[in-house]
Amino acid sequence: MPKRFTPDEYAAGVLSGNRVLLSRAITLVESTLPFDQDLAHQVMEQIMPQTGNSVRIGITGVPGVGKSTFIEAFGNYLLEQQDKKLAVLAIDPTSQRTGGSILGDKTRMETLAANSKAFIRPSPAGKTLGGVARSTRESILLCEAAGFNVIFVETVGVGQSETAVHEMVDFFLLLMLAGAGDELQGIKKGIMEMADAIAITKADGDNIPKAISAQAEYQSALHLFPVNPSTWSPTVSVCSAYDKTGLDAIWQSVTEYVQLTQKNGYFQQRRQEQNLHWLKQSIRQSLEERFYQNEDVKKQWATISKQVSEGSKSPFAAAAELLQHLP
Amino acid sequence: MPKRFTPDEYAAGVLSGNRVLLSRAITLVESTLPFDQDLAHQVMEQIMPQTGNSVRIGITGVPGVGKSTFIEAFGNYLLEQQDKKLAVLAIDPTSQRTGGSILGDKTRMETLAANSKAFIRPSPAGKTLGGVARSTRESILLCEAAGFNVIFVETVGVGQSETAVHEMVDFFLLLMLAGAGDELQGIKKGIMEMADAIAITKADGDNIPKAISAQAEYQSALHLFPVNPSTWSPTVSVCSAYDKTGLDAIWQSVTEYVQLTQKNGYFQQRRQEQNLHWLKQSIRQSLEERFYQNEDVKKQWATISKQVSEGSKSPFAAAAELLQHLP
Repeated sequence: MPKRFTPDEYAAGVLSGNRVLLSRAITLVESTLPFDQDLAHQVMEQIMPQTGNSVRIGITGVPGVGKSTFIEAFGNYLLEQQDKKLAVLAIDPTSQRTGGSILGDKTRMETLAANSKAFIRPSPAGKTLGGVARSTRESILLCEAAGFNVIFVETVGVGQSETAVHEMVDFFLLLMLAGAGDELQGIKKGIMEMADAIAITKADGDNIPKAISAQAEYQSALHLFPVNPSTWSPTVSVCSAYDKTGLDAIWQSVTEYVQLTQKNGYFQQRRQEQNLHWLKQSIRQSLEERFYQNEDVKKQWATISKQVSEGSKSPFAAAAELLQHLP
Repeated sequence: MPKRFTPDEYAAGVLSGNRVLLSRAITLVESTLPFDQDLAHQVMEQIMPQTGNSVRIGITGVPGVGKSTFIEAFGNYLLEQQDKKLAVLAIDPTSQRTGGSILGDKTRMETLAANSKAFIRPSPAGKTLGGVARSTRESILLCEAAGFNVIFVETVGVGQSETAVHEMVDFFLLLMLAGAGDELQGIKKGIMEMADAIAITKADGDNIPKAISAQAEYQSALHLFPVNPSTWSPTVSVCSAYDKTGLDAIWQSVTEYVQLTQKNGYFQQRRQEQNLHWLKQSIRQSLEERFYQNEDVKKQWATISKQVSEGSKSPFAAAAELLQHLP
């Protein structure tokens, strides 16, 4: 990591929209060094009053759905047609290890990356989900303070990251492929029920009839789903990043959702709940780190967890035994 | 609580199938007194080798779906037609407070309660979800040690209990009413995707056509859902507790599921994962109890959580601040 600035320098840089300082501040919140974390807390403290003024959109879909291409097309639509400033973040603890596609291959978003109204930041490498979630959440706030008013948080749709993303965004967009149902195998359970909108991608050329029939299927399936506390009914649409069609309909869903939920108070209430969620989540994470890093716990873990897993020891008795090692 | 026995007495009583001792042992695992918990750990240690030999079935559905009536009819079917020994447990932290219906009104299960091959235990009163989940999980093991080879774990389908139940059973049965979709409002998101079987209840008399059409709707919706890691395809059937129809089809789903997953190894693997889940869950619960009961944390919680909720303080900085109070 390069030289650190003072908290005032980071904050002033971010608030003035300086992209280098924004990048550096994100690197700071990604750092696990205690010194950096202290510094990061001070920076966050200063920028907090300037955060919140964006629409936060989670975007997920299995590999092959055309996520990067969609994000590039939808992103350019927002910059050009809606005069927005867009930040694209990613949350995927495994992407760097597996060489996954999340923002790793920046060439896929070339035109977006070259636009001064867009800011693209890949997922931090070599971290646990908890660590990535934490820094992505703080990165959202930093991007807002830097003046970006639409934030995408991208995830792969096959892991546990979606729940974390769902807890940090206002609107959750699920990208799906038209097909015979096989394409669902990779999607994790519960993700469909999180979606505020489903967009069937690659609805171009010969694919159009298939996409429209998938749209009808999902529409009829969604009415069997529980009603959202927001009172919003999820939309299903088709789009093509290639033909640049259907992007306006998706953006319309987002803006209608925001209008509805700002009016009925759900938008604000949800953000408050999310703030509390991250407080509790952060506490939980620290408590568990302390516990699992305890030397005595580490020594006994393999033996005891094996006994529990095989059913020869009660999980609750085992937990009590291990917890004796804490101060 | 009445007088305690020795660990040997509890264990011997449970293993011999003595219902009074089984009840007492469950009361013991429900106790939060440290002395009782130590005693409970010793009892569990002794009975562990005799546990696991049952099919654990979670049963959920919103109030009004006819859950108690269904359980009574399905339970009697298992005792009479399948020669099973059945234990019925409930997990619902609020049932006692709200006067909810979970096993509270035993008269609804009169014939089941009177049968010596059945054991019915209401949800423990006045506890948190974590506390109820813990004691229900240990009660399952105690009932297995006492010779019960089918265990029902009942829950209401509107709260957070379903995830906990899903983590302690082999098979998850969702009861649904036929209707126009309104009945879904009470069902929590994600529950439908947990189901290994959906049964449309009250399919009798004039209701039959409506139930059969609901069955078709759910069947076509379910094929849009992600495939289970078990490779099992959830079934949808209709039943009537009044006419005693459709119960055999549900039981057939259960036995086919067990055969499939025992053959492909998922059954055993899932139980091992569940054991580890409860070990980690139990550790988490104890760590959080210590933290939130800390006097300094309690003093500052109201102020800090308000600042976080309103967005004037970063959740991560706030967590770091509070965690300084731990030893």
